[in-house]
Amino acid sequence: MKERISRVCQGIAPSATLQLNAQVNEMRAQGMDVIGLGAGEPDFATPAFICQAAKKALDQGETRYTAAAGTPRLRQAIGTDLQKRKGLAYAADQVIVSTGAKQALMNALAALLNPGDEVLLPAPCWISYPEMIAMAGGRAVMIPATEAEGFIPAFPKICAAVTARTRAIIINSPSNPTGAVWSREQLLAVGRLAVEKDFFIISDEIYDQLVYDGAQALSIASLAPEIYDRTIVINGWSKTYAMTGWRLGYAAAPRDLAAAMGAYQSHFTGNANAMAQAAGLAALEGDQGCVREMAAAFAHRRDLMADLIGELPYVSCFVPRGAFYILMNVQSLLGRSFQGEIIGDSGDLCRMLLRHALIAPVPGDPFGAPGYVRISFAISEGRIMEAMHRLGAFLAQVK
Amino acid sequence: MKERISRVCQGIAPSATLQLNAQVNEMRAQGMDVIGLGAGEPDFATPAFICQAAKKALDQGETRYTAAAGTPRLRQAIGTDLQKRKGLAYAADQVIVSTGAKQALMNALAALLNPGDEVLLPAPCWISYPEMIAMAGGRAVMIPATEAEGFIPAFPKICAAVTARTRAIIINSPSNPTGAVWSREQLLAVGRLAVEKDFFIISDEIYDQLVYDGAQALSIASLAPEIYDRTIVINGWSKTYAMTGWRLGYAAAPRDLAAAMGAYQSHFTGNANAMAQAAGLAALEGDQGCVREMAAAFAHRRDLMADLIGELPYVSCFVPRGAFYILMNVQSLLGRSFQGEIIGDSGDLCRMLLRHALIAPVPGDPFGAPGYVRISFAISEGRIMEAMHRLGAFLAQVK
Repeated sequence: MKERISRVCQGIAPSATLQLNAQVNEMRAQGMDVIGLGAGEPDFATPAFICQAAKKALDQGETRYTAAAGTPRLRQAIGTDLQKRKGLAYAADQVIVSTGAKQALMNALAALLNPGDEVLLPAPCWISYPEMIAMAGGRAVMIPATEAEGFIPAFPKICAAVTARTRAIIINSPSNPTGAVWSREQLLAVGRLAVEKDFFIISDEIYDQLVYDGAQALSIASLAPEIYDRTIVINGWSKTYAMTGWRLGYAAAPRDLAAAMGAYQSHFTGNANAMAQAAGLAALEGDQGCVREMAAAFAHRRDLMADLIGELPYVSCFVPRGAFYILMNVQSLLGRSFQGEIIGDSGDLCRMLLRHALIAPVPGDPFGAPGYVRISFAISEGRIMEAMHRLGAFLAQVK
Repeated sequence: MKERISRVCQGIAPSATLQLNAQVNEMRAQGMDVIGLGAGEPDFATPAFICQAAKKALDQGETRYTAAAGTPRLRQAIGTDLQKRKGLAYAADQVIVSTGAKQALMNALAALLNPGDEVLLPAPCWISYPEMIAMAGGRAVMIPATEAEGFIPAFPKICAAVTARTRAIIINSPSNPTGAVWSREQLLAVGRLAVEKDFFIISDEIYDQLVYDGAQALSIASLAPEIYDRTIVINGWSKTYAMTGWRLGYAAAPRDLAAAMGAYQSHFTGNANAMAQAAGLAALEGDQGCVREMAAAFAHRRDLMADLIGELPYVSCFVPRGAFYILMNVQSLLGRSFQGEIIGDSGDLCRMLLRHALIAPVPGDPFGAPGYVRISFAISEGRIMEAMHRLGAFLAQVK
């Protein structure tokens, strides 16, 4: 008998985050007050005016298919937004609206990759990129960056990773999980390399409006026409407007790449949910005060969490300039013990913290960050203080 | 310089339906009263109680990520519905909720196919199947059926198409574009063949509640446990509840296949829109009177359209027992002429009908039905009568 599951699907690693969530939920069901630190979504509600637009669309009967790549009005509004915020010129037909930025990324990989093509991945990086690249038939080539480098690989490292099979690089600025924001010089160097070596750039800008300390998340596509010509910009509403459950994202790209992504999506899912598209339009065209308020709240929480980590033994952190995660350095804990049990790696540490401190950070290893754990600050200040207090009590018992 | 677009995306044929739609829209923009006959969606509004459930979900703040495979309640309700309507036993963890049945189909193909695997396609068939199979790395093997066979390939033809590379067959009953409904005997024969020859069955049952003349759309998975064990059932809300724009569908399958599809989807798009899921739950648990009303309206329109076609020269039709399309036989028109122009194939005919009769059926060729055109009766009775009147006037000038 043949194997029942395709090799591609057999190769998908079970998500570390999901396994952890399941365990957290089980403990909570048993009545334990676990503080989840794995959240990949804002804890805010979707702003009311955005919800109102979805309801209005429903009342107006906007329940039919839209064009597979999104309504003309929404695609136009995305172009306008990118021009205003980032100096990027995209006409409506260069924009493909998708079921979340995830699908926009998969469309981009499908449009570019032939079997065996290599995709450069500066690491630490989002846990899903390597899986997505494999699902699209490609091969992820990790380029590890150290905390001393500010979690962005030094340029010679990137150059050294390029081969004849290099098809693309994924830039994620601000980064999940590090919060690093790429500078103009860093982006320009990679952009010029892509032009010289004939590869493409997938620029995942999903966290671009959650930046702190005056940081600015530039789009690499804005730096030169020849870079624009080989860049696919990815973004969405999930993080900026607290719209994760709506599943709405987009890609903006040169016309030929946009057409390829649109054709692929038209057979894969068709249009994103019609009411979500109406809501997304309202979000872009409405008052952006809600975005500023959420970003300010995140900035405050980041300061609080970083300060509290600074007071603790064994651990330290790189202060993120964007997104809503802190990658906490736990290298000094490895090899030490808690209640007689050795802390071998960050996975061991997370299991112990869950059991003994009732807090649930995510191990850094699957993000390409061994010796680190990822902590989300998309929770309230009260919970942040309580979580850091519990972490402190745990660390006091480490030997 | 390398080619900019991947081979997979270069291989995607532009959709014939979409090109036609664009042309229709252009003519309408010029003020012409074109009757579209290509509609792939009900012309009804989504029932009010379903819209209400979506609004309530919004008001309750259900705007966050759900589990990638859908909310536990919805997956459970799908299992209950399949048990009640079709005698199928699926637990919640055997159900994957997707962004439309399209995605459920792509998940199924991705879970099953290795590069070069063959998928049997009884034809005429839905225009997207061959593209989807190619996108998943497989090869479509068409098995053409004639109108005399009732548009379902005789069993020996199916047997003859099986090779060592056969990985799956797609059964679509009721069928788009033919409206044919497979009998128990026909399904059982294919099911036993799949067991004997070790291949899988993708059973696309999206039109199963739009059946006429007392026809019953059986699920092949319900016929024997060993067939169930190698079947993926696909369905969704679009056609049954007039919810095309919501993008909500599902697959139900044995646990190992469901897990593979769930993992694939979790990296591809994550969950379907959260409000659509709440609406879908209300649809399944609410009064099914709306479904019966829509099916009755379609039955009436089908009779009307078939009767009117019966009165016209040159054309004839197989009366569909399900879905909302008539595949009209136009073979007697090929080789004849209209105003001196030769009608070479069904594409020529459709272009002439659009220009001279202001009606827009879809050519049968891309569905694997040369010599036919597809006419949707998802339009009002008034428009059906007017369209058939225009067709008659055109035919009166054919020589």
